[in-house]
Amino acid sequence: MASAEKLRGIFTPNIVPLDTHGDINEPELRRYTDWLIERGVHGLYPNGSTGEFLRFTPEERRRIIDIMADQNRGRVPILAGAAEANTRETLSACEYYHSLGVRAVAIVSPFYYKLSPDAVYAYFKEIGDNTPVDVTLYNIPMFASPIDVATVQRLSEECERIVAIKDSSGDLPHMIRMIQAVRPNRPDFAFLTGWDAALMPMLLVGCDGGTNATSGVVPEITRKLYDLTLARRIDEARELQYKLVTLFDMMLYSADFPEGFRAALKLRGIETGEGRQPYSSAQHLQLETLSNSLACLLAEEGFADEPVGGCPVGAQKIDPEQVGRIVRGVLADLKQRGLA
Amino acid sequence: MASAEKLRGIFTPNIVPLDTHGDINEPELRRYTDWLIERGVHGLYPNGSTGEFLRFTPEERRRIIDIMADQNRGRVPILAGAAEANTRETLSACEYYHSLGVRAVAIVSPFYYKLSPDAVYAYFKEIGDNTPVDVTLYNIPMFASPIDVATVQRLSEECERIVAIKDSSGDLPHMIRMIQAVRPNRPDFAFLTGWDAALMPMLLVGCDGGTNATSGVVPEITRKLYDLTLARRIDEARELQYKLVTLFDMMLYSADFPEGFRAALKLRGIETGEGRQPYSSAQHLQLETLSNSLACLLAEEGFADEPVGGCPVGAQKIDPEQVGRIVRGVLADLKQRGLA
Amino acid sequence: MASAEKLRGIFTPNIVPLDTHGDINEPELRRYTDWLIERGVHGLYPNGSTGEFLRFTPEERRRIIDIMADQNRGRVPILAGAAEANTRETLSACEYYHSLGVRAVAIVSPFYYKLSPDAVYAYFKEIGDNTPVDVTLYNIPMFASPIDVATVQRLSEECERIVAIKDSSGDLPHMIRMIQAVRPNRPDFAFLTGWDAALMPMLLVGCDGGTNATSGVVPEITRKLYDLTLARRIDEARELQYKLVTLFDMMLYSADFPEGFRAALKLRGIETGEGRQPYSSAQHLQLETLSNSLACLLAEEGFADEPVGGCPVGAQKIDPEQVGRIVRGVLADLKQRGLA
Amino acid sequence: MASAEKLRGIFTPNIVPLDTHGDINEPELRRYTDWLIERGVHGLYPNGSTGEFLRFTPEERRRIIDIMADQNRGRVPILAGAAEANTRETLSACEYYHSLGVRAVAIVSPFYYKLSPDAVYAYFKEIGDNTPVDVTLYNIPMFASPIDVATVQRLSEECERIVAIKDSSGDLPHMIRMIQAVRPNRPDFAFLTGWDAALMPMLLVGCDGGTNATSGVVPEITRKLYDLTLARRIDEARELQYKLVTLFDMMLYSADFPEGFRAALKLRGIETGEGRQPYSSAQHLQLETLSNSLACLLAEEGFADEPVGGCPVGAQKIDPEQVGRIVRGVLADLKQRGLA
Repeated sequence: MASAEKLRGIFTPNIVPLDTHGDINEPELRRYTDWLIERGVHGLYPNGSTGEFLRFTPEERRRIIDIMADQNRGRVPILAGAAEANTRETLSACEYYHSLGVRAVAIVSPFYYKLSPDAVYAYFKEIGDNTPVDVTLYNIPMFASPIDVATVQRLSEECERIVAIKDSSGDLPHMIRMIQAVRPNRPDFAFLTGWDAALMPMLLVGCDGGTNATSGVVPEITRKLYDLTLARRIDEARELQYKLVTLFDMMLYSADFPEGFRAALKLRGIETGEGRQPYSSAQHLQLETLSNSLACLLAEEGFADEPVGGCPVGAQKIDPEQVGRIVRGVLADLKQRGLA
Repeated sequence: MASAEKLRGIFTPNIVPLDTHGDINEPELRRYTDWLIERGVHGLYPNGSTGEFLRFTPEERRRIIDIMADQNRGRVPILAGAAEANTRETLSACEYYHSLGVRAVAIVSPFYYKLSPDAVYAYFKEIGDNTPVDVTLYNIPMFASPIDVATVQRLSEECERIVAIKDSSGDLPHMIRMIQAVRPNRPDFAFLTGWDAALMPMLLVGCDGGTNATSGVVPEITRKLYDLTLARRIDEARELQYKLVTLFDMMLYSADFPEGFRAALKLRGIETGEGRQPYSSAQHLQLETLSNSLACLLAEEGFADEPVGGCPVGAQKIDPEQVGRIVRGVLADLKQRGLA
Repeated sequence: MASAEKLRGIFTPNIVPLDTHGDINEPELRRYTDWLIERGVHGLYPNGSTGEFLRFTPEERRRIIDIMADQNRGRVPILAGAAEANTRETLSACEYYHSLGVRAVAIVSPFYYKLSPDAVYAYFKEIGDNTPVDVTLYNIPMFASPIDVATVQRLSEECERIVAIKDSSGDLPHMIRMIQAVRPNRPDFAFLTGWDAALMPMLLVGCDGGTNATSGVVPEITRKLYDLTLARRIDEARELQYKLVTLFDMMLYSADFPEGFRAALKLRGIETGEGRQPYSSAQHLQLETLSNSLACLLAEEGFADEPVGGCPVGAQKIDPEQVGRIVRGVLADLKQRGLA
Repeated sequence: MASAEKLRGIFTPNIVPLDTHGDINEPELRRYTDWLIERGVHGLYPNGSTGEFLRFTPEERRRIIDIMADQNRGRVPILAGAAEANTRETLSACEYYHSLGVRAVAIVSPFYYKLSPDAVYAYFKEIGDNTPVDVTLYNIPMFASPIDVATVQRLSEECERIVAIKDSSGDLPHMIRMIQAVRPNRPDFAFLTGWDAALMPMLLVGCDGGTNATSGVVPEITRKLYDLTLARRIDEARELQYKLVTLFDMMLYSADFPEGFRAALKLRGIETGEGRQPYSSAQHLQLETLSNSLACLLAEEGFADEPVGGCPVGAQKIDPEQVGRIVRGVLADLKQRGLA
């Protein structure tokens, strides 16, 4: 695939199936790779936040890309998460992934420490000046140091190897500001949104695609939403965007990320195994409940069987008065104990 | 005007012109009211945040609506800001504005104290059960207690006098969630966005209109953006949305709100006078600079003369390296002194 | 009382008792004023945040001070909350309160709009240059625009009528920074903390006193904590500070502010009546539970009778596992519905 | 050293000197270790946030402890930062550090992902149940998932190997709440503060010590502050605490963390080398300025020479009006460009 081709479409950040020992389940990762490509995603995005890159060792991160690149056999472009401990390690990973033929790497902004715009610039500048492979900036301000508009603009003007930004802020005016600042000088620079709940409007204001966790679970829906939006079938797209919000919210907010996505993926028949972050008994209970709710949602689309107990008819109604009462009580307890 | 008609279109939150004594400039307020209506806004929205409702006395707030309702003579619907010190005072204002024939009132969520969802519910429930005039909820989480989705849903189901929400969060998925929760049971309930920087996408995902501060300054642009979007002329709408973001950002972020809007309005020939919040000498300088930049932007659209010194050709370029250097130095000073 | 005397000690921000019509209960307000003075508070602070100044009309705010100043008859200094709609109205209130003989006024930083440091400076500078009575700055960043260290320093150097700051941030290093910046030039300038949970350490690092909501409910404890700390009886003070944290947390976090303080005050025999912010049925339930817990805490100190059902022996234990489980479930529901 | 001994005193989180290739400078690290011990710190805390644990590879992290434990030769207890990619890797690190004879490990709460209290609990429970060496919880909410009071309580009751918490929130009431919840059942459990700007008051409300970055630069001051506070020489301690706030603020806020600490350490004669996070030219300039200011501060205490240009006499005065003007202008530019 030509390096000159602009990044476009839906890139799937994939969960990594683990076996009963907590090790990478290679056969299932290969099967999952095929499963995604067959369902129409435009590209693969291993070692992203959904892929829990931080919970693997540096060696495991390389092996994940090894396996997926091998299984892909050039069918779709790969965007490889390449953030390591420092720029030297990251550049070494870039070289390795380049040798595997990935289309580009994606590098998250420095995290843990909250860095200034200048420091974020210096970090990506060092990488952009020395990488052998195209680089996608990865802005996810809820987890990492934000990459602001001026920094994206500087980097896009100074480093031709930096060819895209993945932005997971979900902030629409921010996306507009970035496009305004960069596109006139770099029409080849791609803007991808990582916020599935705003995919349709993001595409309509000028995004080129998305790296969307929902596409790892319901690639059929995410891809169709992309196609409908590009075809300007606005009313149909809006209906589908609404559905995606419901599904996205349930997977994102009902459990510690990315457990909701893992639970849903199990329902689709992928043997994800358990994650590496331990669960408490309370969390196990919670995931069971979530899994039932997800099964009902997926069953509506024909993507899963209804759970044994069946599903509620029509919209799932929760009595807000009741919820409010419980919540107030719980929050009172919590705050009293210094939790909130 | 029929109470049954759903709220739609662009409602303008207007600044109140003051005379040299800092009192309401009635003739100019009347002239401004006509000016707005003649330029196509669908409705008027006095005593909103842009209208600095908090900086007027209760008596002045009533007088502002008196004047504007009288000048309007029924040409367009009026949405009257009616928040007072407590529910008794607010209901009294509702009755008064009802007697003036306003289409509805808009009531901001309780502010200063950060109230729980239950308390926000109880506040609007008390008002919704006793108001003689239709009520628009006003959610502006950066200034007031947030109104969450469940609360909007409860209120929409329990109070038929509550007919709309104005949401200034700018959060697109949040708007989708509200529409999903309310519209099935209350198709007459209107959703208005107060975040001009996302007007086009908000309309495309289902909003009925907006209460947009830019429409008080460039009503021609805001109205045209609304029309293009409803006509599904997506590419033209997007170009205009980009322009509106530039203008909105400059007016919103370059001075203490709403001074940027006041400065721009002066350039359009409305004698706003000075605001009631005192300015420091630093702020005076800053407003002069802003005014020049705004004049250039408005001149591009034929809405103002270029400033005496002329305008830069093409996009205004700021060297981000230089800005970064200054900022780091200043922030260092600030933080050292405990400001940041 | 000499204007030259530095503000020192515990000033009580008092709740205003209301009658069954929701109007000011003058006889009970007079009785409460005496009750506080008799229990040793150093000063009174009506129309603060605890006093719900925003929920009264401008006329009512004046009447509250009228009543209390009259009842006080010069026994203790009064710090009168004087924030009104704008500087003109605020200065008019300053003149009025001055005529009543208050020691000083307290003026909260502009709220609702989040103002820049320059604008906060300009606001207080206008007031400081024109007030006939001493002014206390009131910094409460969780509710109003923050007053930063540099602004306090400027104002202290330029306006001799500005004689104190009440800081409710609870941020200890911030207090140290303010004292370092101001005290060398203005040894008469007083620093009062509004954060009861840090009263002892705040006094030890240099504060002159506090405006503490707990002192409106348990003036005996707050006053004793002040005395022990000044006497450097560190171990006894720490034990009492721990007790005050427990009480403060329960009143502050278990209900919408200031309902927890009102509930506790009822237990002490003051007929507060109901507040002006309406309650939902869920909130009524919650307040009953809180009231029982408060009764147990107050009974331990001999300040109230145990509730009918009795109190748990020893520390009230909540099973955190159980709480965690409930919370996760509720938050899941909430987030799914867009509340969190 | 006996495992039963409670953690007490000042533990120094040390920067790791690097050579011109960016590799660990072993001789200088050994010299720095001696330098710290000779200046009276009670313990060493390698691989903390100040130690930039995240910017080293897993192998390098082990080597750092190897070197320091070897150089220490049992003179002072070592608290070894042991967070790795997941619980399996972390437990393996615990075993290794145990074999080196460290007193305990310190494990930061999971970062990047923002985990729920239940998940934070499950993470530490897994570690606490399987570690061969004592564990210190590390709560640093500005960088990692917060560890709330209920979670600390649960873990302290269920895992005897968990013997301490290092809390860098700087929130004094929070510290009081933790001590209240844990100390009655676990008198051996230690509370260490990581917030140097509140060290004295933290010790006075019950903390057992601190892990303070300033002690890596001015161990003489931090240690003396600890001693004065424990001796209840309150006035002297307060004066020293004020000085430490000035120094801490300058090192913490004037550059990207931990560059300010590195710059100061160079002035004390430790050859730190450059950090691994690249600098922009703007940052280089900024660090030079900071270094001069730090030299003046350190020279006052006799810890460094004055810079060539000399130092200002008395307090360094910055004109706040001037700063305000610059800042407003810069922020206006920034916000306009979407940076703020």
